[in-house]
Amino acid sequence: MAGETVITVVGNLTSDPELRYTQNGLAVANFTIASTPRTFDRAKNEWIDGEALFLRASVWREFAEHVAGSLTKGSRVIASGRLKQRSYETKEGEKRTSYELDVDEIGPSLRYATASVTRAQSSGAPRGAAPQGGNFGGAVEEPWAPSAPAASGGQDVWNTPGSYSDETPF
Amino acid sequence: MAGETVITVVGNLTSDPELRYTQNGLAVANFTIASTPRTFDRAKNEWIDGEALFLRASVWREFAEHVAGSLTKGSRVIASGRLKQRSYETKEGEKRTSYELDVDEIGPSLRYATASVTRAQSSGAPRGAAPQGGNFGGAVEEPWAPSAPAASGGQDVWNTPGSYSDETPF
Amino acid sequence: MAGETVITVVGNLTSDPELRYTQNGLAVANFTIASTPRTFDRAKNEWIDGEALFLRASVWREFAEHVAGSLTKGSRVIASGRLKQRSYETKEGEKRTSYELDVDEIGPSLRYATASVTRAQSSGAPRGAAPQGGNFGGAVEEPWAPSAPAASGGQDVWNTPGSYSDETPF
Amino acid sequence: MAGETVITVVGNLTSDPELRYTQNGLAVANFTIASTPRTFDRAKNEWIDGEALFLRASVWREFAEHVAGSLTKGSRVIASGRLKQRSYETKEGEKRTSYELDVDEIGPSLRYATASVTRAQSSGAPRGAAPQGGNFGGAVEEPWAPSAPAASGGQDVWNTPGSYSDETPF
Repeated sequence: MAGETVITVVGNLTSDPELRYTQNGLAVANFTIASTPRTFDRAKNEWIDGEALFLRASVWREFAEHVAGSLTKGSRVIASGRLKQRSYETKEGEKRTSYELDVDEIGPSLRYATASVTRAQSSGAPRGAAPQGGNFGGAVEEPWAPSAPAASGGQDVWNTPGSYSDETPF
Repeated sequence: MAGETVITVVGNLTSDPELRYTQNGLAVANFTIASTPRTFDRAKNEWIDGEALFLRASVWREFAEHVAGSLTKGSRVIASGRLKQRSYETKEGEKRTSYELDVDEIGPSLRYATASVTRAQSSGAPRGAAPQGGNFGGAVEEPWAPSAPAASGGQDVWNTPGSYSDETPF
Repeated sequence: MAGETVITVVGNLTSDPELRYTQNGLAVANFTIASTPRTFDRAKNEWIDGEALFLRASVWREFAEHVAGSLTKGSRVIASGRLKQRSYETKEGEKRTSYELDVDEIGPSLRYATASVTRAQSSGAPRGAAPQGGNFGGAVEEPWAPSAPAASGGQDVWNTPGSYSDETPF
Repeated sequence: MAGETVITVVGNLTSDPELRYTQNGLAVANFTIASTPRTFDRAKNEWIDGEALFLRASVWREFAEHVAGSLTKGSRVIASGRLKQRSYETKEGEKRTSYELDVDEIGPSLRYATASVTRAQSSGAPRGAAPQGGNFGGAVEEPWAPSAPAASGGQDVWNTPGSYSDETPF
């Protein structure tokens, strides 16, 4: 993919991530990040909250399960991804546009929190498949695997290049 | 601060963060993030690692302690901050330049890991206890203080963002 | 200002910039940038256009006049700024949200074009130069003033960056 | 390419771009961008220049010629690209590291300047090849062509995917 609009957002989840599964068992988590800028009011000598930016976000696959298992309403996160636009029609036939963040990376911010991190055993392995020996541990041995390939979205997610395809057992 | 060069880096820590304290008790953590891009080789139909980018990074204050307590060698992180250049002279009198990331936000990536997050009790509060004497004024004198709460100066650095204030234990 | 969501967009103007003036004489230019990502289809061995991202953008003051005088429909640009959200109500009382780019920097891309650049005579006019009429006070009252020179307030907005001051023709 | 460290820099060229040609006739332009952040000193009520960030940058092919023909020492630019690290050895055998920006997009900033933009006739066409009818106008008819494919660097530039390969005369 080339020419995408990359964006980094820091903010707080407005609610717990919603985890769902597509018909073919693919996990997806959706949530909204609220990012509130602040202006320093020199007259009052204090920071004043600006209008928040609310950005709908989605993650896929094991990554979605990690997010749903780690973040909750109020969590402060740092997320990067690609800003996407979706056009749709309302029931009344009106055309609308929404913006959404296709998340490439997200993590809990350590600015006001600590985290106990556990490497996912099943990284790159299918949901539900029992760990079998060492052959599902690709991600563990591949700590620097790139982020982009597995983040393109829904329909084509099994066709994406890269680190996951060779670990998929079906 | 205006006109800074903001950058988001995804990569792995090359070693555990080094946590130290300045003379006036201010915590600072230093570490290096290695970010490895990959190219898809269409002839071989596989991804190939490119040359890694190694970026030295620093965080300050409680944030530094959170980082040192949460991340270890190999941790995959997403970090954003401002790219800074530092000029120095070697013992031999040669001028050198180094680049460094002044971290504004960092968290463990959830792409291949889960995290159990604990809100810091002392968020925005001085480490340890009530302010006593001058040893908490580090941020005021500290040009490298983290930017988000203190982006335009020092005096307000203890006023951490509003959304958390109702959870401050005092 | 701290904690804003900074974004860089590359794309083409969907029409000529619209230049208008506020009641107190402040220039503002509005336009839409269309950014089209492309995916490489390995089966077909060719690039395929993805869904475009359309982003409404605004610039202010002399900067707006420079944009309106330099860019036209179809111009490929690189722009960076802060992603903002605006809530509004339709005539029917429905709540809507729009996203907009508050442009900090923009220029014509040189990828497929050349440009003959002319330094603006009035750029960085020194503070203290006598304002003529009321039309110079806009920025002070203007919450959406461009951020780079005025990132922490309004009073200093005529103090443009130092690097140009020695080239100011008066 | 995935997992690269993308960065946007705003600053001024420290000198005219240096335009050279590789042995097989490929153009490359090198230059340095100086980006100077500013802090608002509330005590003095004025902006103070911080330490500048100097970043070496390179562009390739026709794009390089456009840059060399449009920008000069002092030009204020907005540039985005990928931050790269290069390791090398000095004559004395010391290992050194340098950072460089592989430019994907660059343009003259319109903040303090206006620009007269001319679409490149030869965009995507080989240098020196005489325009022959409409077949060199690919870029003209493809105004939203993506930026990444042609920006990967030197050695592999003819192997890159995409819009240029079919126009390469050898």
